[in-house]
Formats: sequence, C-alpha cells, structure tokens
Amino acid sequence: VHVESSLLSPANFEKEVLRLGTTTAVCDPHELANVAGVNGIQYFLEASAAMSLDLRVMLSSCVPATHLETNGGGKISASDLLPLSRHPKALGLAEMMNVPGVLYEDPDVIEKLELFSSVPIDGHCPLVTGAALSAYAAAGISSCHETTRPEEALEKLSKGISVWIREGSVAKDLNALAPLLNMARSPAMGFCTDDRNPLDTFNEGHIDYLVRRAIALGVPAEVAFRSASWSVARHYGMSGKGAVAPGYTADLVLLNDAKTVAIDRVLRAGVFTSEIVPRPIHASFDVTNTVKAHRPAEVDLEGPAGNVHVIEVKEGSILTGRRIARSDSPGVAKLSVLARYGTNAKPCNAYVHGFGDGFSGAIASSVGHDSHNLIVVGTNTKDMATALASLIECGGGFCVVRDATVLSQLELPFGGLMSPEPASVIAKRLMHLREAARTVRCEIPEPFLQLAFLSLPVIPSLKLTDRGLVDVEAFKIIDVRAA
Amino acid sequence: VHVESSLLSPANFEKEVLRLGTTTAVCDPHELANVAGVNGIQYFLEASAAMSLDLRVMLSSCVPATHLETNGGGKISASDLLPLSRHPKALGLAEMMNVPGVLYEDPDVIEKLELFSSVPIDGHCPLVTGAALSAYAAAGISSCHETTRPEEALEKLSKGISVWIREGSVAKDLNALAPLLNMARSPAMGFCTDDRNPLDTFNEGHIDYLVRRAIALGVPAEVAFRSASWSVARHYGMSGKGAVAPGYTADLVLLNDAKTVAIDRVLRAGVFTSEIVPRPIHASFDVTNTVKAHRPAEVDLEGPAGNVHVIEVKEGSILTGRRIARSDSPGVAKLSVLARYGTNAKPCNAYVHGFGDGFSGAIASSVGHDSHNLIVVGTNTKDMATALASLIECGGGFCVVRDATVLSQLELPFGGLMSPEPASVIAKRLMHLREAARTVRCEIPEPFLQLAFLSLPVIPSLKLTDRGLVDVEAFKIIDVRAA
Repeated sequence: VHVESSLLSPANFEKEVLRLGTTTAVCDPHELANVAGVNGIQYFLEASAAMSLDLRVMLSSCVPATHLETNGGGKISASDLLPLSRHPKALGLAEMMNVPGVLYEDPDVIEKLELFSSVPIDGHCPLVTGAALSAYAAAGISSCHETTRPEEALEKLSKGISVWIREGSVAKDLNALAPLLNMARSPAMGFCTDDRNPLDTFNEGHIDYLVRRAIALGVPAEVAFRSASWSVARHYGMSGKGAVAPGYTADLVLLNDAKTVAIDRVLRAGVFTSEIVPRPIHASFDVTNTVKAHRPAEVDLEGPAGNVHVIEVKEGSILTGRRIARSDSPGVAKLSVLARYGTNAKPCNAYVHGFGDGFSGAIASSVGHDSHNLIVVGTNTKDMATALASLIECGGGFCVVRDATVLSQLELPFGGLMSPEPASVIAKRLMHLREAARTVRCEIPEPFLQLAFLSLPVIPSLKLTDRGLVDVEAFKIIDVRAA
Repeated sequence: VHVESSLLSPANFEKEVLRLGTTTAVCDPHELANVAGVNGIQYFLEASAAMSLDLRVMLSSCVPATHLETNGGGKISASDLLPLSRHPKALGLAEMMNVPGVLYEDPDVIEKLELFSSVPIDGHCPLVTGAALSAYAAAGISSCHETTRPEEALEKLSKGISVWIREGSVAKDLNALAPLLNMARSPAMGFCTDDRNPLDTFNEGHIDYLVRRAIALGVPAEVAFRSASWSVARHYGMSGKGAVAPGYTADLVLLNDAKTVAIDRVLRAGVFTSEIVPRPIHASFDVTNTVKAHRPAEVDLEGPAGNVHVIEVKEGSILTGRRIARSDSPGVAKLSVLARYGTNAKPCNAYVHGFGDGFSGAIASSVGHDSHNLIVVGTNTKDMATALASLIECGGGFCVVRDATVLSQLELPFGGLMSPEPASVIAKRLMHLREAARTVRCEIPEPFLQLAFLSLPVIPSLKLTDRGLVDVEAFKIIDVRAA
C-alpha cells in the first residue's frame, strides 16, 4: 500500500484500517520520498515505531521515477537506503518499477538489488512476459501487484513471482484474477490496495472488502482468508503472523459471518482496537511547507496555439490515448504542470481532451505521480492561476475553481499529499469536491485521481511533467506543437 | 537427517543420496556432537562447505541428552553454539528434545531458544498434546518429525508446527500420516528420514522412496513433490530453492515417470550428478580414536543374580517394556554398557529379554544413543568381553562374537559412528553382520539398531546407560535387583 494515496496521515490511516481488520500493512512511502527524499521514508519508519498498526516499510527503490521530471527528494541511491534498512520496521526493497533498469543492468538498480538480496524485493512489472519476465524474476524480485490478466498471473506464478491481487480506486484487478485463486495457488497469492482513496475505503472497506468480493466471486472462504493473511506473512518472512496459533501475535478479526466478512471486533496484538489508545507520532522531520513555487502569471499558463498534440484521457484508466487537434477544438482543455520544489521554473503547458465539452473552470492538485508537482486542468488561464495560487498558499491539496473563485478545496499540508483530518472528514470533503467538479461541468467523476496520473511518464502514452510533454513510448520530451 | 545414522562419511552420504535426488539436506550432527562436542558440529559445518550436496546444519540443542549418562562431548551451551551460528551453512537450532526443559523454563534451554529466536528451531515432541504442546509451540519451535498418529499431526499443524513425516529404519510413520497430506496442508508438511540405515537407502531409496510411497498411498503427485521440495525450502527460509523458476538453484530431478518417481538423472546446481567431481573434505578435527576404554575383565560384566528388572525389547520399536524375572530365565540375556570416553569406569550391567531363547554369543556396538558408549548384549561374559575388546581395538563399530571369535565386524572409525567405506561396501558388510547375528541365533533381524536405542534414557520405559539402569518414567537410576 501507498499510505499517501489514502490522503490520511499515518495516525488516521491506522485508525481507519485497523477497525476494518487490517492489522499489518506493508507500505512503500514512494510518494513522500519523491517529495522529501530519504526523510520521507524515515518519516514512515518513525511513524511505524509509534503506531499500533504493524506497519512494515519497504524502502522506495525508484526515486525519482524517471529523468523526465523534477522531484523534491532528488535521487535516492543504494547507499542512501542502507542505513534505513537496519530499522526494525524496514522489511525490504519496494516495488522495482524500473524494469528496463533491471533488464539492462543499470548499475544503480543492480546495486540496490544486491544490497537487498537477502530480504524481500517487491516487483512492478505490468504485462512483462517471456524472457524479460524470467530475467526480472531471476534478479530476485519476488512479487508483483500490477497483474491485470489471468494468463499474465499464471506466468508470474510459474516463475516464482507471488501475485498480489490489487483493488485500488482506479486500477481494479479482482474480477479478472479471483478465478485463479485456489488452494494450490494460495501460498503465492495475496491481496493489496496499492492506491485506494479514503472514500472507497470508507464506503466499501479495505482488505476486508477484497476478501468479501473474492468470496462472492467464488473463491472458497478458507482460501481467501489464507491468502489475505498467512500467505503474505510467509512471503515477507513475518514469523508469528498470519495464523491463529500459540506464540503468534494475537492479530484477530472476529467475524459474525465468514462468507460476508461481517466484522464484529478486531484485536491487534491482543487488544481490542476500540480500546487502543494511540501513541502520539513524533517525526524528526517536518513534511509541511513543501510547495515552494511562485504564483504563475496567467500568461505563463498559455500553451502554443494551432495544431497540437493532445492527451486523451480515458475514464477509469491511468493509460492515456493521444491525438493531434486544434488547440481551440471543443472539449480540448489546457493542462499545466508547475514545478514546486523551489526551482522557480515556469509552468509547462499542453492540452488534454476528455474532461468534457462543457467543462468551464479549473481543477488543480498537488498530487501528481510520481514527482508530485502542481498540476492543473482548466479552460481559462485565470481560473488555472487562481487554482495554483490557492494550492501554493495552503501547502498543497485539491481544489476546484470557477470565475476566479475557489468552489471547494481539500488541504493536504503533509507533503502536499496527506491531510491531518480523520477519514470521515476527508470523505465529506471529497464528496464536496466531486460536487464542485460537477458544478464546473467536469464529466470525469473522479478528476483528482485521473489528474494525478497525467504527470506519470512511465504509463503510456502521452503525459505532461514539469519538464514538458512526454512521449512515453519514445521516452522523451516532444514539442507540444504538432508537425 | 542424522547423517551419522547412515554410517556413511559426509562424502559418501553425499554420493549415495545425490543420485537418489536428495540435493539439499538439513542435518543435525547430534551423534558426533555427543562424541566430540562442538568439534563434532564444526566437523559437519566444514564438510558442508566442501560438499556438492547442499548440506545445511542445524546446531545440536541437547548435548548431552540427559544427566543420566556420560558422553564425550560434555555439555554444549548456548554460548558454545553462538560462534557456530554464523557459519553460512548453519541454519538454526536442531531438534529440541528437552520438552520438560522448555515447559519448565530451564535457563539453559531458554537461553538457546532466545539465541535462535530469529531462525528455524526444530522440534521433537512425540505425543505431546494440549497445553503442553501449545507452550512448546509458543516457545518458537516450528517443526516436529516425531509424530506417529494422525490426530497428533492435526493438533501440531493447528498450532503452527510443521509436520515432517518420518520413514526411518526403525521408526516408520508414513502409513499413518500420508492420508493427511493434501494440497491445503502441503505447505506445512514434508518428509524426513531421521535415522535411516544405508541398507534401506540402498534397497529402497531416500526421500525419493518416501515420495514414491506417499503417492502409492494415494497422495496426489503434485502434493507429494511440493511437500518434498518447496514446502521444506520455504519452512527453512531457503530462498531460491524448492521450485523450478528463474533465478532458482537448478537442483533438478529428471523423472521417467512422476508417479513411480522413476529417476532418470539428477542435477545439483545445474550439474549432472554423474559429472560432479567431489572436492576433498578436510576437517580441522580428527574424529577418529574416540573409543578410550580399557578392555573389561569378564568378571566385570557379571550382573547381580536373582530377581532382577529385565528390559523387554519390542522388535521394530525403540520403546521397551519391562518385567521382573530371574536373571537365569530362558531368553534373558546380559546387557552391559561401558563408558568409552576415558573415565576408566567399570561397565554397568543389567538384563534384557527379546533377543531370542536360543541366542548364544555376543553382539556389540559403539553406536548407542545418545552418548554412544559401548553396548553389548550376550549370553556369556567371555564373548561379551571379546566383542568389547574388538571394538576398543578398532575404534568402534559393530561386531558379532561366538566362542570368543569375531564372526563379523564393521569398523566405524569416525567417532565410532561412521565408516570411510562407500555405501555399497557397507551394505554388504551389514548383510554379513545380519547373517552372523542369525548364526548366533539372535531373533531380531536388525539387532544393531535395536541395541543402539537400549541406552537412550529419554524413550520409555527401561534403559541402560554407563551410569546404570534407568527407569525412564521416574527419570532416575534404579537398582538392577528387584525388591
């Protein structure tokens, strides 16, 4: 799990998921690491030491994600990770997203794989297959949570890669993969949320939801529960976890009904979660005030006019299409990314289609994978400038603007990623933001998640970072103007 | 496995079992440790470093087995084991036979359990059940190979204790436990040989035999192979072992038929075993010349006459019965144990029934669990003295004597436990010894194995050590004379 995607602070994340039966979580603080560097990882390690939830931290392996963007954390090397790896809550190396780096033996990647060769290394290899997948597995990477197709899962399992079935807020793989989950495969399959927003957790549940859905899809209950607990605990070498047995930690979920996963009460380390008094979390690092950018002039948000490359948003997918169109065609909106780590760079401007023909206003966010610069989509530079100014002012968050007025806003002061508010408050604020998005006639029901992936230059096919428009297949920055 | 029970040197053990598809073995050098102390464990660690077989060494936890016997290795403490635990082939703590020591928190036992709390600790808890078993499991002990009954296995499994199904030369549990082995339980069940003599391995096979038998008993082949490889590798945290996958060690058994486990060829680390050139094993420790005793006078082998406690041998069982009888009753033979570690003690003498009414002569051995003093059964003190003298002369072994003449002998110069000869030669010599045992009209077909357990004072109910006759239930030495 990326805790940051819950928008919750570690303390509130714990409160929200413990009651849902998630007593242990394996996290990758990849987002905060891109904002704050090694301190971002250290922040979660320190939090984990004080938390009641058993939070294990995989050390982020790919910061920054690419050389085509500017993050705040700089480059995290193997030698940066080494001191962190000795922390008792440090579990291994987090998802190795740099698949080409593994295959072509990038020295930085190899150094990390060697450093962590005796502990678990998580993978991230969507659609990788054949000899490439074999090489990736042979590098010692032993799990993947980016599997979307049954045949892809079977190949990974046959190559010794455990498959974590993901059901996030955007990427949802449970329907496709649940049919594979049987007793024979259960030791090498588990569940994960990856990026799950607090509304979904609030409304549907957390891992309990995945177990419930898997059982509803026909997975035998004993198989689903085994995968959700014992299998993952064994995979990560957590002794005394994942079973009800003498000497095991009493992390127990008491159910009124096993098949519907109707939770009665939850115990963590033998204590009813309702009776747990949270210990205060004191981090050595201040992760607020991370939005360091000047409010841009409206003119700086103006992209080139004429025939341009346009990013085509596909609702519910983090993949994008692309096309060439006139910059003033109906439904084509402006998209800008503004560096937010004190470089005083001007915004990079491009175009996007898919937010709706009637869209009128601006929507902005400081959550933009993986570097988390400020990203704004809008129909006029005035609203866009207002939205960016508002986020710069509050230290990051989400906002919706029309007629230079902020209609709705959620502040995320921790790294521009997380809120100090509890889940119930955030859920309400997100509902309000969604309503505001409808008010500006945005046709995408979940525009912030969608926006967050428009800056991620490792997912095809056309993305915008603070350095420019990225042709992902060519893996280079291209001119917004079409030839 | 106790390699010593194969009577083979590590080099010859490797040669014998590799061809049968045992490419990795987890051993407990408990026997040599009782003879030679920490050096006995070190001997196997050094051997493992040079061997082609992947021999992992569990560090012997219970040397000596009891305070009712005298071994050569003295007492091995947690601090003695600590330096050994850093060896790359050291895997964990070997079978914790001292169940009362665990339950009553013997400080020496607790110190060892704590020292090894982060690595596997093997168990040994025959018939332990209920709260005692829960406490034993809670102490961090995670396997047992001493399970003989299905309900016993189910309780252990439910308490997080992996069950290794044993098929040794005396103790045979496969028929009883194979019916439990299914896909759901397979991750927590495996196979082991414990004490298996070279004749059985030569005639029937090694782990391949257990897999073959399990399949014949109805275990699905995929379950039997999983348990024999992946499950055990995962239990012991051996990464890159136990499956056919990229990056895994190419320890492969090529089969002509999966169900009959008809082995075509075996590869160890990618090399056909037929092409492996063994590296010489140089141990820093000489484990020969370990039989340090004076040849006893005949009179010293004479036990008290009259009404005596008689050990009742049960063929094919390491448990004994007991009864009170006249020392000169038909079928009652003399039994003596002579300390062999330089204490110049006199033999301890008692009586045994079950070797046959017509038995006439003596059978002696330097293999006598767990302290491996010299043990001899006979019908007259002259033959018994001759047998002991012959073993003292050759540094240990097995022999059969009649009319003061050695009819057959196998020398075991390594610790009085192992031979330098290859398996095929030992098999022939054992056949010859069996024939000699028939010549002296011994009715037990495998008298040396039976003899070896008559000195083990942890198995009920009446045993003889170098210190006297042990009432195992009372756990004390009693007078041979019956009240």
